[in-house]
Amino acid sequence: MANDLHTVFDETLYPYINKGLDGVVAFSTTKSSIDGQNGELIYTGYNIDVLAEKSTFEEVCFLLWNDRLPTQNELDDLTHKFQARRDIPKVVLDYLHSVDKESKPMSVLRTATSMLSETDIHLPDDSYYEKAINITAKLPTIIAAFSRLRSGKEIVQPKITGSTAFNFLYMLNGEEPGIQAEKTLDLCLILHAEHGMNASTFTCRTVGGTLSDLYSAITAAIGTLKGPLHGGANTAVMQMLMELEEQGKDANAVAFTKDKLAKKEKIMGFGHRVYKTFDPRARHLQKMAQSLSEETGHEELYRWSMDMLNTMKSEKNIDPNVDFFSATVYFSMGIQPDLYTCIFTMSRIAGWAGHYMEQMEHNRLVRPRALYVGEKNMDYAPIEER
Amino acid sequence: MANDLHTVFDETLYPYINKGLDGVVAFSTTKSSIDGQNGELIYTGYNIDVLAEKSTFEEVCFLLWNDRLPTQNELDDLTHKFQARRDIPKVVLDYLHSVDKESKPMSVLRTATSMLSETDIHLPDDSYYEKAINITAKLPTIIAAFSRLRSGKEIVQPKITGSTAFNFLYMLNGEEPGIQAEKTLDLCLILHAEHGMNASTFTCRTVGGTLSDLYSAITAAIGTLKGPLHGGANTAVMQMLMELEEQGKDANAVAFTKDKLAKKEKIMGFGHRVYKTFDPRARHLQKMAQSLSEETGHEELYRWSMDMLNTMKSEKNIDPNVDFFSATVYFSMGIQPDLYTCIFTMSRIAGWAGHYMEQMEHNRLVRPRALYVGEKNMDYAPIEER
Repeated sequence: MANDLHTVFDETLYPYINKGLDGVVAFSTTKSSIDGQNGELIYTGYNIDVLAEKSTFEEVCFLLWNDRLPTQNELDDLTHKFQARRDIPKVVLDYLHSVDKESKPMSVLRTATSMLSETDIHLPDDSYYEKAINITAKLPTIIAAFSRLRSGKEIVQPKITGSTAFNFLYMLNGEEPGIQAEKTLDLCLILHAEHGMNASTFTCRTVGGTLSDLYSAITAAIGTLKGPLHGGANTAVMQMLMELEEQGKDANAVAFTKDKLAKKEKIMGFGHRVYKTFDPRARHLQKMAQSLSEETGHEELYRWSMDMLNTMKSEKNIDPNVDFFSATVYFSMGIQPDLYTCIFTMSRIAGWAGHYMEQMEHNRLVRPRALYVGEKNMDYAPIEER
Repeated sequence: MANDLHTVFDETLYPYINKGLDGVVAFSTTKSSIDGQNGELIYTGYNIDVLAEKSTFEEVCFLLWNDRLPTQNELDDLTHKFQARRDIPKVVLDYLHSVDKESKPMSVLRTATSMLSETDIHLPDDSYYEKAINITAKLPTIIAAFSRLRSGKEIVQPKITGSTAFNFLYMLNGEEPGIQAEKTLDLCLILHAEHGMNASTFTCRTVGGTLSDLYSAITAAIGTLKGPLHGGANTAVMQMLMELEEQGKDANAVAFTKDKLAKKEKIMGFGHRVYKTFDPRARHLQKMAQSLSEETGHEELYRWSMDMLNTMKSEKNIDPNVDFFSATVYFSMGIQPDLYTCIFTMSRIAGWAGHYMEQMEHNRLVRPRALYVGEKNMDYAPIEER
C-alpha cells in the first residue's frame, strides 16, 4: 500500500508543495548576506574578502555573536576564554577512549558535543553566550583527540595560549605548526564560519525555536552538516581526487570528469543552491590550494582541480563551491580526508551560535505543514483477515 | 550595533518573512492527517480513535513504517526484533554509569541515542529500516537505566518477551506491571506516536534532507522535542500541578488559573498551532487520567485539571492539548515528572522514523532563505581605532 499511495499521488498536481522551501524567507538576520548573482558574501556588515585579509577566526566569532567588531580588550577577553576552556571533561575523554575507532568522525563529534552539555548542567538554558564559548573552545580538542586515539597515538593536551588554528594543528600533529600553516587554517576557519540559511543553520534555529538549549541545537546542526549533500561534500571531493591519484600523477582529469558526466554521476564540489557564479570563498581557497599544493609537492592535485573546474565550466557552466578547493587545501596540510567536515564544524559553530542567539532574541516556534496524501478513516480489519 | 541593527529593522515592513513557516506546505506525507477544525487525527489511513481501541504500539510502528497494517507474521517478526534488540551496548552503559546524575534526562537521552550509532557502524546509511528498529528497541532501555542509576538503584536488564510498554515499566520499576498499567502506557505510546509536521519531525526530515543518517536525524529530533515549547510541555504541566499540590488537597485550581492569566503567565498544556478544538488525543488521555487518579488516590489531580480546563475554556476559549492530561496519567503511574518527555520520545520515534523513510523516498535538500537586514561592505577599522 505504501507504493499504491505514492503512485496515486502526483506531485505535479500539488504545485504549492515546496519540498526544499526554495525561496521561502523564514527569518530576518544580521549574520550574513549572500548575493548569489554577484558572488558577494557579507558577514554582519563586512565583506568576506576584507575579513579574509584582515581578520581572525576569534574576531569573526565576536562579530557574529555581537553584531560588531571587538575592541582590543574585548577580543583579548574572548580569546582568553577560548584558551582557558579548551579542556574536555572526563566523561568525554572516557567516551573517546572507548568508542570504536572505525566510527565516523562526525558521528563521534555529534555524540561528544551532545555530551559537553554535562559541563554546563548548572548554567541555565539562556546562558547561551557562555555555552557558545565553551563549545567553540572544546570542539577542536575533541576532533584532535579522536584523530590521535584512532591512530594509536597519545592525546596531546591543549595549550592555554595561541589561536584556535595554532592550537588545533598542535593537538592534531603533536608539534607546533609554522606561521604559514596556522594562517592557512585560520583563513579556512574564517571562510567557513557563516553562510546564511543553509540546512544545518536552519536546523539549529528550528531546534532553538522550541526554546531548547544550545547543545541540542549544535548537536542537531552537526548531524545535519554530516550529510553528503551538505558538509560531507568536501570529503567526497577528496575521494574523487584520490580516485585520480590511484591512476598515477599523469591521470587525465578532463577525461575523468567527462566520463563521470556521461555516466550521470554526481561531481562533488560544484554548484550551489544560491550562488549562480563563482563562490567568493572558493577564490580564496583556490589561491591557497595552488600555493600549498606546490609547496608540498602535490602540484597534480591543483592541476586536476583546475582541469575539472574548466571541464565543468565548459560542459555544464557550473562553478565550484566552497568544498571544492578546501579538499586540496586540507589534504596539502596533511589532514585526513574524513576529518574535513569536522574542521568545517569547528568553524561553522561561529555562525550556528550567532543564529541561535538571534533566534532567542526574536523567537517563534517553526512549524510548517505537510499535505496528507493518504486515505482516511479506513476500516480496521482484524489481523487474521489481512 | 546589535541593537541598532534590530531597532532599524521593522518587521512589519517585511510581511513576507514567515518566521514560524505558518501555512507553508513543505512536504506531502502518508503518515498522518490532522484536521484541526474537527479534531480528527489519522495515522496512515486509520483514525486515532480506532487505533486507540484496537491496535498496539508495535503495530502502529509497522503501520507508520510500511503504510499498511501488518499480517500476523509481520507483526510477530517486528515484535521479536524489538524484543531481541533491547540490550544497549557497553559504551552507552559506561556513559550512563559515569554521567552526572543531575543531568537532564532528555540531554542524557540525546547523547545516548547519538552514541547508539556505534552499534551500527558497519550498516550503510540506507539501512534505515533496521536502524529504526534498533533505536525503537533501545530507547526504553536507556531511559529506564538512567532513571534507576540516578536513584542509586541497579539497572534491570530488559526481558526478551513482552510488549514495549510492559518491558519499559518492568525495567523502570524492577517488577512486572499489571495488565492495566501496561495497557495504559501502550495507549499513551499509540497516542504520541505521530503528529504531522511538528518541530521535531520537521527537524528530523531536514536532517535527512542532507542524506545524513537516521541516528543524526533522531538525535536532532530529541534535541528539538526537549524544548519547553514542544515536548517539554508535559513536564511543565506537572510542575504546575505540583504547585497546587504544595497548597494542599483543597487548593483552588480555578483561582490559581485566573491568577496566572491575570499575571499573563503561560498556562502549559493548552492551545495548539493546529487544533482549534479539543485535541482527540486529549479525550483518550482525559479518560485515563480520570480512572487512574481515582485508582491511585490522587482524585485531586483530575479535579484540578478539570477546574483548569473549564476556566481556560470560559476565560480564553482555549482547549487542552495532548500534554495536559498526559501529565496526570504519567504521575498516577508513578513516573517521575522529568521523564515524561523521554516517554514521549520512545513513542514519537515511530513517527520520526516513518517521516525519515518518506524523506529518503522523495528527498530534496531543505534550504529556505533569510532576509539580511544589516549593513554591507562597511569599512574595517583597525582594532585600535574602534
